[in-house]
Amino acid sequence: MPEYVVPTAKRRRGRPRGGSSDARDRILAAAAEEFGDLGYDGATMRGIAARAGVDAALVHHYFGTKADLLTEIVDAPVRPDVDVPRLLDGPRDDIGERIVRYVLEMWERPDVQKRGVALLRATLGNRLTTPLLAGFLSRELIGRIAEGLDAPDAELRASLVATQIAGLLLGRYVLKLKPLAGASVDELVEWMGPTVQRYLTE
Amino acid sequence: MPEYVVPTAKRRRGRPRGGSSDARDRILAAAAEEFGDLGYDGATMRGIAARAGVDAALVHHYFGTKADLLTEIVDAPVRPDVDVPRLLDGPRDDIGERIVRYVLEMWERPDVQKRGVALLRATLGNRLTTPLLAGFLSRELIGRIAEGLDAPDAELRASLVATQIAGLLLGRYVLKLKPLAGASVDELVEWMGPTVQRYLTE
Repeated sequence: MPEYVVPTAKRRRGRPRGGSSDARDRILAAAAEEFGDLGYDGATMRGIAARAGVDAALVHHYFGTKADLLTEIVDAPVRPDVDVPRLLDGPRDDIGERIVRYVLEMWERPDVQKRGVALLRATLGNRLTTPLLAGFLSRELIGRIAEGLDAPDAELRASLVATQIAGLLLGRYVLKLKPLAGASVDELVEWMGPTVQRYLTE
Repeated sequence: MPEYVVPTAKRRRGRPRGGSSDARDRILAAAAEEFGDLGYDGATMRGIAARAGVDAALVHHYFGTKADLLTEIVDAPVRPDVDVPRLLDGPRDDIGERIVRYVLEMWERPDVQKRGVALLRATLGNRLTTPLLAGFLSRELIGRIAEGLDAPDAELRASLVATQIAGLLLGRYVLKLKPLAGASVDELVEWMGPTVQRYLTE
């Protein structure tokens, strides 16, 4: 019995990237079990391969990294773990605004918003899946942002950014609080950009 | 059938404030139905009284205000709707720090944290109960804070504060992200106080 119940996508987007779709499906099922049993940090591509009865190279071949695999399983509509650390490569003096704008522009897309809200609800509402989200965020988002900062308290700084972004998503898209839902992207960027900027660089 | 399922307390704290415990129980059941059917804004003390077959004055006598009644039903461990607007009566130049410190000091209490996390999960995880939380927050917390501010964009400012506080609660107590869970109250007040201060007063 998996310790967590992984909220899997109801329908898989796109077509398999070639290869035996049987092996592919076995890997997906094995990965859901492995993540459920061991959490994000504990799960390994080798362990998933063993459960599926295939070579670890095949798991990488079909699905890329562990982050790719989890986001595929839960049908994540965005890849902040890929996109946000890239934003840090640009100029640092408006990084706060760029991060807030990136998040809002993504979540304004109806498909992203719909799936994103469902996924937030599923992972926050359930005591068993919350640690999986926390593990993913810590390792793949907060950890990567922190790597891009040159500060002793980089992990805390990146986590503070996560609180402001999480609160924004919650207030505007889940709770749909009127003043937040009614504000323009530009207004929110103007208000929250400096917050994120301060957490990251000041 | 109520439109929302109100997450009621498993066990009621304290003893009834006198009067017929039968009428009291009928009012509580009627209120859960009324909130479920009509949401927070739509529910009225008069409507609850009618459902319970009692006089509206008796509902006020037993339970006080509509906010008192809802927080009693869901066994809310804190009353930010009562406490936070009061904080605004104090000096304004460190109001941000005082709000963040108030929230953290409350949530550091194990009983508050346990019930608070359960309540957040229950209301955020369920599409049907989320609007009830949103209605309560809008009317009783954000609305009251906004009343205490003298600014045309007071509702948006108060909502921005709500996003930062919600993100803090989510990161430290629900997701338990290590850098946030490991930070001291003072550290978090130092980081987030200026954010809340700016949203409220700058």
